[in-house]
Amino acid sequence: MSRALNFNAGPAALPQTVLEEAQKHLLDFKGTGMSVMELSHRSKVYEEVHNGAKLKLKKLLTISDEYEILFIQGGASLQFSMIPMNLLIDESVGSYVLTGSWSEKALKEAKKIGQTQVLASSKDQQYKEIPSADLNKLSQDSAYLHITSNNTIYGTQWDTFPEVSVPLIADMSSDILSKPLNVDQFGLIYAGAQKNLGPSGVTVVIIKKDLLKRSNDQLPTMMNYQTYSDHNSLYNTPPTFAIYLLDLVLEWAHSEGGVEALEVKNTEKANVLYDVIDGSKGFYNGHAQKDSRSKMNVTFTLPTEELTSSFLAQAKDYGFVGLNGHRSVGGCRASIYNAMPLDHVIQLAEFMKKFKSLT
Amino acid sequence: MSRALNFNAGPAALPQTVLEEAQKHLLDFKGTGMSVMELSHRSKVYEEVHNGAKLKLKKLLTISDEYEILFIQGGASLQFSMIPMNLLIDESVGSYVLTGSWSEKALKEAKKIGQTQVLASSKDQQYKEIPSADLNKLSQDSAYLHITSNNTIYGTQWDTFPEVSVPLIADMSSDILSKPLNVDQFGLIYAGAQKNLGPSGVTVVIIKKDLLKRSNDQLPTMMNYQTYSDHNSLYNTPPTFAIYLLDLVLEWAHSEGGVEALEVKNTEKANVLYDVIDGSKGFYNGHAQKDSRSKMNVTFTLPTEELTSSFLAQAKDYGFVGLNGHRSVGGCRASIYNAMPLDHVIQLAEFMKKFKSLT
Repeated sequence: MSRALNFNAGPAALPQTVLEEAQKHLLDFKGTGMSVMELSHRSKVYEEVHNGAKLKLKKLLTISDEYEILFIQGGASLQFSMIPMNLLIDESVGSYVLTGSWSEKALKEAKKIGQTQVLASSKDQQYKEIPSADLNKLSQDSAYLHITSNNTIYGTQWDTFPEVSVPLIADMSSDILSKPLNVDQFGLIYAGAQKNLGPSGVTVVIIKKDLLKRSNDQLPTMMNYQTYSDHNSLYNTPPTFAIYLLDLVLEWAHSEGGVEALEVKNTEKANVLYDVIDGSKGFYNGHAQKDSRSKMNVTFTLPTEELTSSFLAQAKDYGFVGLNGHRSVGGCRASIYNAMPLDHVIQLAEFMKKFKSLT
Repeated sequence: MSRALNFNAGPAALPQTVLEEAQKHLLDFKGTGMSVMELSHRSKVYEEVHNGAKLKLKKLLTISDEYEILFIQGGASLQFSMIPMNLLIDESVGSYVLTGSWSEKALKEAKKIGQTQVLASSKDQQYKEIPSADLNKLSQDSAYLHITSNNTIYGTQWDTFPEVSVPLIADMSSDILSKPLNVDQFGLIYAGAQKNLGPSGVTVVIIKKDLLKRSNDQLPTMMNYQTYSDHNSLYNTPPTFAIYLLDLVLEWAHSEGGVEALEVKNTEKANVLYDVIDGSKGFYNGHAQKDSRSKMNVTFTLPTEELTSSFLAQAKDYGFVGLNGHRSVGGCRASIYNAMPLDHVIQLAEFMKKFKSLT
């Protein structure tokens, strides 16, 4: 069986061993005669999976006991609303740095809930860079500062995070677990699973416990972080099979050597592609400025739209999947999350060189 | 490989052929070299799954073009809030019939949003029956009437539904697709998938299109039915693998002969257990009144708590899974959804008879 050269931006390629493990036990998990998805979410055998996933994430990212790990449905898009609903209280101001479409969407939802502030934005630079934020301009009433750590559409990524006096909140959907992280720097981290953590359908929220106090009990129960914290994310039926796959992916990340080792591999993979871009004398034109480049999503265009189209068509014929840029910006995008094998990236680099030489 | 005697209340047993099909293609769906969960949700091959599931449900329940079918995350519990947030507008009143804990939870969330009315309740009868509602008492300002069509905890089920002038809304999480249904009688039907439709992690909402007008665009985007309707439930990444399994379960329901045939089988299965209860001369005491009995969840107790405990312990040793009543009420509960084979129900009936004869 041959595996696709899957450069999808998310849902994305999963580790082959994870899929093989899930396949093997799909009808009989741990001798129960049941699939994981047929287990009661109140059963011990499921709770081991559930708590195992939490523990593995805690170890991988060195998360202290000052934080809760929550499993929520609805994707990062639901978090865009849950964050201000829970944390933007008492006439405070939600501060946002805009680095792309997802930050804009997060801001849009916050505006429906309360006061907001755009602390910095690189919109006028076509989101080619992570803007430097003047932290002195942070509102005195700021409830939090929200950033998007990696921007899938534009291919930019935060390198170091701002040191602020208010809780720093990061949408890490597309780069969580790709490198070591100082969780203590954050008030809240959230990530839809479908890039580095597992399948779509579960979102991980890492929240500092002292922030839970802000949640008002008049919020819809399922929109209240306290509900998930009070019930170990088992207030209602969680997406059990998605959490099982999350657990397997975290197990795999451990076996790969943890986030330090994953960072080395991710850097190597990204360099393979950026080297082709930089060595192409402008044939491949990277969208992101060099100091803002993402190691997860490599975005580029060719000299003309015709060449870009021709490149994408031939790449598809070769067998590459998902190289089209996001509908909103066009061009090309290679998403190379944790599970992407180096070998597939090298194949793409060779293809890019060959396409250029034949043009 | 032997399959468990799985009487879980949900997540619950799935059709074996569905699991086998998912297992077979877990690493390579339709020759793509990718798992369904690795496909882009914008790809044609995934959209076929997505739209296929909608079409199959439309056919199975004879849903007219006046309705939209939406796939939402968050379970029925999130619908408890989405319904009043979208539909309880302009000082109107949300009317509720209480038939158990889930109705109570739905009401509790509506109270946070607006005015409510309890039209009928069987709480004082320990939820042993579906109460008859005096429709003349429906508030003149009623926005909708909400019911829970099957009550998993108490083992009761609506037989015929009230004919009302306002939109009838039903939580059908635990009996959708178990029998024919006149969808035209409803304004909105919702169901968490994890009983009759698939795994946990996706909720089906069937909403009459004219109700979509009520949704205010200041609602959180992910809490607005319009968002799902406008984007074919693809505004953000849906839980693709859960929807794929839903599609397979719907395919299976077709192959079983549709809802008419499923009703015949479900009636037969329920009768096997109720016959043991009724023939036991009070040894097995059904919780539900006969005219309110559920064909999905058979709830009963034994003469003493000791006997109930002994029964549950021996049943567990025999291999039966999930026969404990809900934490909130105790006793025994056999959940026998669509995918439960008749043979497993007969084994339970034989076990019940034997336990009684040896006591």
